[in-house]
Amino acid sequence: MTLHPSVAAVRIPVRTALSDLAAGETVAVACSGGADSLALASATVFEARKVGLRVAGVTVDHGLQAGSADQAERVVAQLAGMGVDETLTARVAVDDASGLGPEAAAREARYAVLEQVAEHLGARLVLLGHTLDDQAETVLLGLARGSGGRSLQGMRPAFGVFARPLLGVRRADTVTACLVEGLEAWDDPHNHDPGYTRVRVRERVLPVLEAELGPGVAEALARTAGQLREDTALLDELAAEALAEARRDGALDAAWLAAVPAALRRRALRRAALEAGSPASELTRDHVLAVDALLTGWRGQKWIDLPGPLRALRRDGLLVFEAPPPA
Amino acid sequence: MTLHPSVAAVRIPVRTALSDLAAGETVAVACSGGADSLALASATVFEARKVGLRVAGVTVDHGLQAGSADQAERVVAQLAGMGVDETLTARVAVDDASGLGPEAAAREARYAVLEQVAEHLGARLVLLGHTLDDQAETVLLGLARGSGGRSLQGMRPAFGVFARPLLGVRRADTVTACLVEGLEAWDDPHNHDPGYTRVRVRERVLPVLEAELGPGVAEALARTAGQLREDTALLDELAAEALAEARRDGALDAAWLAAVPAALRRRALRRAALEAGSPASELTRDHVLAVDALLTGWRGQKWIDLPGPLRALRRDGLLVFEAPPPA
Repeated sequence: MTLHPSVAAVRIPVRTALSDLAAGETVAVACSGGADSLALASATVFEARKVGLRVAGVTVDHGLQAGSADQAERVVAQLAGMGVDETLTARVAVDDASGLGPEAAAREARYAVLEQVAEHLGARLVLLGHTLDDQAETVLLGLARGSGGRSLQGMRPAFGVFARPLLGVRRADTVTACLVEGLEAWDDPHNHDPGYTRVRVRERVLPVLEAELGPGVAEALARTAGQLREDTALLDELAAEALAEARRDGALDAAWLAAVPAALRRRALRRAALEAGSPASELTRDHVLAVDALLTGWRGQKWIDLPGPLRALRRDGLLVFEAPPPA
Repeated sequence: MTLHPSVAAVRIPVRTALSDLAAGETVAVACSGGADSLALASATVFEARKVGLRVAGVTVDHGLQAGSADQAERVVAQLAGMGVDETLTARVAVDDASGLGPEAAAREARYAVLEQVAEHLGARLVLLGHTLDDQAETVLLGLARGSGGRSLQGMRPAFGVFARPLLGVRRADTVTACLVEGLEAWDDPHNHDPGYTRVRVRERVLPVLEAELGPGVAEALARTAGQLREDTALLDELAAEALAEARRDGALDAAWLAAVPAALRRRALRRAALEAGSPASELTRDHVLAVDALLTGWRGQKWIDLPGPLRALRRDGLLVFEAPPPA
């Protein structure tokens, strides 16, 4: 029997993701019951068995929708049917006091509980089912924020105990893999609610891009994200080094920083402002450029007002970030 | 009389662009008769007069459309009416033997003739009317090619004798500025021909992005382009340095390169392949990653085939690019 190409497309990156684990170790798979994470779980069971790993299937119940407990039970049954060694339902209460918004708060809560579950299970790795399509959507969402390469670098392929082996796999392949394997995927109604920007990106923006720019746009976006992630990591590291070298008693050497290449200097200034207490969500490129002009276009300007509130000013050859005087 | 904000929006960056020129020098403005370049020409005349610069208005006749000579005459009359010191019509024959495609070939021919005209006029600077909207379109066109930050950096604000002072100005402001100043802009029918990808990006893609992601997408794209241009310039420079240091008798020190951060190593490898004769239009990210695996995932692989044709292989601790043996 020939292996279906979509099943192979899912299994191959899973095999790579598992290659660092030793026989007897445990890998956890987060599974919502959607096609992506269902195909991921199935591929993980197949690949793990070949190398003697234990597989734990974990589903998270946010309790946000009526029937979510039933859905969690259904996923647990599907996971058990695939032959995972252990199943677990993690219940999270989403607390939106963080100010992140409901989607981000739910995500944070999900990762926090998955981390605890991994520790409880002794799992070395937790696999997440995000696909190339999710990555392309994330890049487009970042585009709208427009803060350069940082906003376009998409999701991380790995962080902490988590890995996303399917970031190079099309969502359609996960759907086909489920069909081929007889796995009945759950179509979350949230995935079609146009109240979510991500849903509009998926259902309206990407199809128009593909129609007008030609097929392959999603792949191009995902490829671009990977490269920008590499670039951003290096530039951030170099900027941190430049910032460390510019420090003089809680301030920055203006002449020294002025000689640093623009790409690093502006990153270093952004970082310095964040460290001085400016909130990342409010500090814009224009703010950073205004502070930069204190270094490269010095003509005796007064201070620059920054969110915080904070002031950046030049004093005796030093760039200083400080709180504004009380009103 | 108050200055209209759209007229001010065009004049301010033109003033900055002219600030390096001394009284008596000549600035040339390339003008097609469209709203962008007409508003640019008008702003240039206004700003140049204040600081004693001469202005030459130049229009390029590609001879591609019936009536293009009439259109050139009309633009020359408009430029003269604005009070430019000199007008000039440059005729170019577009030769598409370059293999660039008709749009790119016309662009190359236009810049080449404008460069000659600048030399003939003794102009220190040639201003081009590309707007923020053109920049956003260029970024989206680059997105479809998907080769990372390089493909998203948009148009250069300045190169050689050329400058694009309106890259931060919305096209709508140039249209309004023309209306306010009584300048009748020409609407090139090519600008609405959906046979051009750029036209589809303008008329179909950007409106959908603005509708679904929120207003400000064009600005976000242009801002991102500026940041990625900075980043790319630095990374290219650092990669060139790394490549120079890795060279050993026409080959590259594999162990030395393997220790270079990924963002620089992969840029260095791309550059090495291009220098060895691989054509930029055919060398993909996947090619570069395959060559990179000879450095960071060495397990005695055979050579990697690259466009050229070319082979990359590892031999005695060196990475070698060489022609394949004759068949």
